[in-house]
Amino acid sequence: MPFENIKDLYEEYKKIWSLNYALSLMGWDRETYMPPADASIRGEVIGTFSELIKDQYLKLYNLVQKYEGKENLSDEEKGFIRVLNREIKYYVKVPIEIIKELDKVTSEALIVWRQAKKSSDFSKFKPYLERIVDLERKVAEYLGYEKHPYNALLDLYEEGFTVDDGDSIFNVLLPNLKDIYTKVREKNYFPETHPLEEVEYDVKDMEKINNEIIRILRMPEDSFRLDISAHPFTIRISGNDVRITTRYEGKDFKETIYSVIHESGHATYELLIDKNLEMTPLAQGASTGIHESQSRFWENIIGRSKEFIHVIYPILIKYLDFVKRYNEEEIYKYVNTIKPSLIRVDADEVTYNFHIALRYEIEKKLLSDEIKVGELPEIWNEFMDKYLGIRPKNDSEGVLQDIHWSQGSIGYFPTYTLGNVVAGMIYSSYKDLKENVRNADFDNVKTWLKEKLCKYGAIYSPKDLLRKAFGKSYDPYDLIKYLKEKYLNV
Amino acid sequence: MPFENIKDLYEEYKKIWSLNYALSLMGWDRETYMPPADASIRGEVIGTFSELIKDQYLKLYNLVQKYEGKENLSDEEKGFIRVLNREIKYYVKVPIEIIKELDKVTSEALIVWRQAKKSSDFSKFKPYLERIVDLERKVAEYLGYEKHPYNALLDLYEEGFTVDDGDSIFNVLLPNLKDIYTKVREKNYFPETHPLEEVEYDVKDMEKINNEIIRILRMPEDSFRLDISAHPFTIRISGNDVRITTRYEGKDFKETIYSVIHESGHATYELLIDKNLEMTPLAQGASTGIHESQSRFWENIIGRSKEFIHVIYPILIKYLDFVKRYNEEEIYKYVNTIKPSLIRVDADEVTYNFHIALRYEIEKKLLSDEIKVGELPEIWNEFMDKYLGIRPKNDSEGVLQDIHWSQGSIGYFPTYTLGNVVAGMIYSSYKDLKENVRNADFDNVKTWLKEKLCKYGAIYSPKDLLRKAFGKSYDPYDLIKYLKEKYLNV
Repeated sequence: MPFENIKDLYEEYKKIWSLNYALSLMGWDRETYMPPADASIRGEVIGTFSELIKDQYLKLYNLVQKYEGKENLSDEEKGFIRVLNREIKYYVKVPIEIIKELDKVTSEALIVWRQAKKSSDFSKFKPYLERIVDLERKVAEYLGYEKHPYNALLDLYEEGFTVDDGDSIFNVLLPNLKDIYTKVREKNYFPETHPLEEVEYDVKDMEKINNEIIRILRMPEDSFRLDISAHPFTIRISGNDVRITTRYEGKDFKETIYSVIHESGHATYELLIDKNLEMTPLAQGASTGIHESQSRFWENIIGRSKEFIHVIYPILIKYLDFVKRYNEEEIYKYVNTIKPSLIRVDADEVTYNFHIALRYEIEKKLLSDEIKVGELPEIWNEFMDKYLGIRPKNDSEGVLQDIHWSQGSIGYFPTYTLGNVVAGMIYSSYKDLKENVRNADFDNVKTWLKEKLCKYGAIYSPKDLLRKAFGKSYDPYDLIKYLKEKYLNV
Repeated sequence: MPFENIKDLYEEYKKIWSLNYALSLMGWDRETYMPPADASIRGEVIGTFSELIKDQYLKLYNLVQKYEGKENLSDEEKGFIRVLNREIKYYVKVPIEIIKELDKVTSEALIVWRQAKKSSDFSKFKPYLERIVDLERKVAEYLGYEKHPYNALLDLYEEGFTVDDGDSIFNVLLPNLKDIYTKVREKNYFPETHPLEEVEYDVKDMEKINNEIIRILRMPEDSFRLDISAHPFTIRISGNDVRITTRYEGKDFKETIYSVIHESGHATYELLIDKNLEMTPLAQGASTGIHESQSRFWENIIGRSKEFIHVIYPILIKYLDFVKRYNEEEIYKYVNTIKPSLIRVDADEVTYNFHIALRYEIEKKLLSDEIKVGELPEIWNEFMDKYLGIRPKNDSEGVLQDIHWSQGSIGYFPTYTLGNVVAGMIYSSYKDLKENVRNADFDNVKTWLKEKLCKYGAIYSPKDLLRKAFGKSYDPYDLIKYLKEKYLNV
């Protein structure tokens, strides 16, 4: 038992863990099997659970204090206290009125955002976003920060990640990506669009393909599920019960396949965390960015590779007659079209990080009050023009496209780029990757990832974990190297 | 808002309600979609939730005391306090050591009972059952009772139900049932077995039939689900989310159909409870017996009637080719075979209550120490001989057949007979029933049941509710009248 020295904390924490366990299941059920009439009661119960969890955290406050700076603790025990302190910190430092106000504003803002997006009218959403930004600035003040208020919010999603880190990553990435993009289009090996994007499929057939893919990916039958929901997601109930969802749009079959591979990447991380950490705050990913690195690694670096297409091609032609007209190379091109898109979630590997850079710049300057919410539509469009050379025709395909801000998630977006960056670091460091993928030896891939990163859960901060694994923190050059190898060596 | 005078209780109780809501969902998921590797963690979390719920109940103890005997409360408010007091009573009166000991013994006993049943060896189970009976006797002492210790346990499942009630019900039922059974066999209209019991079906077809049946029964699509599990059950998540399950054995198609109708009866009760009672202790059935009356009423009195067979016959022949060889009357006989069975769950309407009488007599005498656990196999077999004229060949088809005692459920069995008795009272009082069923007008049936019984939830004790609805408490003569009409008028 690795938590011998903090047994009281370990035992007490089980209550929080159990409440979160139920919360996860209620969340999963809401998106999959819940009869729709229960939606508002489910919302209320989830709210009550948040209160119960908060009460339990505050109860742990004094208990955890006594271990502060204590010697002779194991890495697991230090990690337990570090993560627990981070979880408690928000409730201790931010006044309850601010938390409640944020809950209230965001639950209204979500509805308003949906309407505003539908009618492409930013002015409807503006007053809500102003209140959210204002409240988030207050949250940052209460949490405390060095140098830049945005740092307080970034830290909520990515421990220790700062504006200095972000600036230096994007300063390296953007010119290199621009260069890669220009060359990709000059060579014109990868198309901008592909005829398969328009071909319709039978949902039952696609379900069979997805089931074969999760079997090939060696997702464990006894502790993993795939269901259907409006938006794909991964949820960990416990380390023995991790569930993903996908959706079936009825055409462009790569969409559902890559959502399954992406979510399977998240799920694999959760499944590979050391089982000794179960029921502790360490039984989770090291950070949002590290988590995203796993999903991106599986989706893009493995899933969109020539080797992986070779592995799944027989399955595709087994169930989808229309695929037979295309050879493996053609399918490889279909899953790797490169084209500047107005919409982030449609973006390819090369242009995706421009979308994040834009949001990062906006969030940073909103927090420091250098720009106003009212200016966002125009600023957004200018950034799009500058980065990708295209301009949204309206707010719906511009500043209103993402749900995140309506939920009060400011500081979350950069972790998408960190996910890509860390996935690049894994690629760089994993010598037998292509061979393992070509042989569909995904048990080996999992063992590699487990030993390198996953088994540690949240024992170490993301930067410490990366240094332990790769001898360095976030390094964008590995991602650039990967993209050059894949997209320019053709 | 019907709880104006006890607002503090109402608000505080929401926490318990929310914890129970999650507990129900975790229970449902465990039997339906949970990946099997999570079983032991799920068990641990459910245990933690029981602790959390207990803590919340004890917190409410002082709060509820202050309303004791207070004037000018509405029926709803009085009911709220009455039911809450009943729920708290167990935790307040029974020492935690006894509760924990019972939890421990029953969780071991469940496993031992399974093995003992498999090898048909009562001696394995005997020491566990002895400890359980001993503990249950202690529970009865701590809870307190008048006249007979069994009364304390009966009251846990059926408020106010006593040995005096039980004795007088069975004293009326048994000779009458014996008489009815003899005449049924003399007339020989209803067969003992039917060839359809051996015919295999395709599960996909049966799923379609069950889906058509729940549509005919007007189960609401937006707040109801039907799934598959090893043992059929009903669970209420909330009044807007009630779920049932069934199973498909692959032959004898009436089994899955009547499990669906039975569970739909339970579900209908939950769905008909006044929505104003949601999130209170009143949002549940009045008692286990009243709940069973609903499932039995739908399953037997409606479902096994000639009128209902007329309604579902077209669906049966639509999906099951082999049914076409039988006319409606023949299907009516197939679903109403009458034959003494060794196994309670296989018993028909006429002989079922003998199985309960046997268990009632045994539980009563165990509690008063008139008989010993070691004597049970022999006593069981003698009762079977006396009541039904058949003798189990071994303990597996005798004293070991039911799971209940291994779970510490002593006092539960009689509620099955109460369910039949109350279903008979409904039959007696509902004049247009046959017409409504023949016309498949199940909305009307539901309105009748709602106004008569269901909408009140647990506002009134079961006896008060029956007096309000029928002007009398449990009356076995209505059941006898129903059985005579159905089985002797042929």
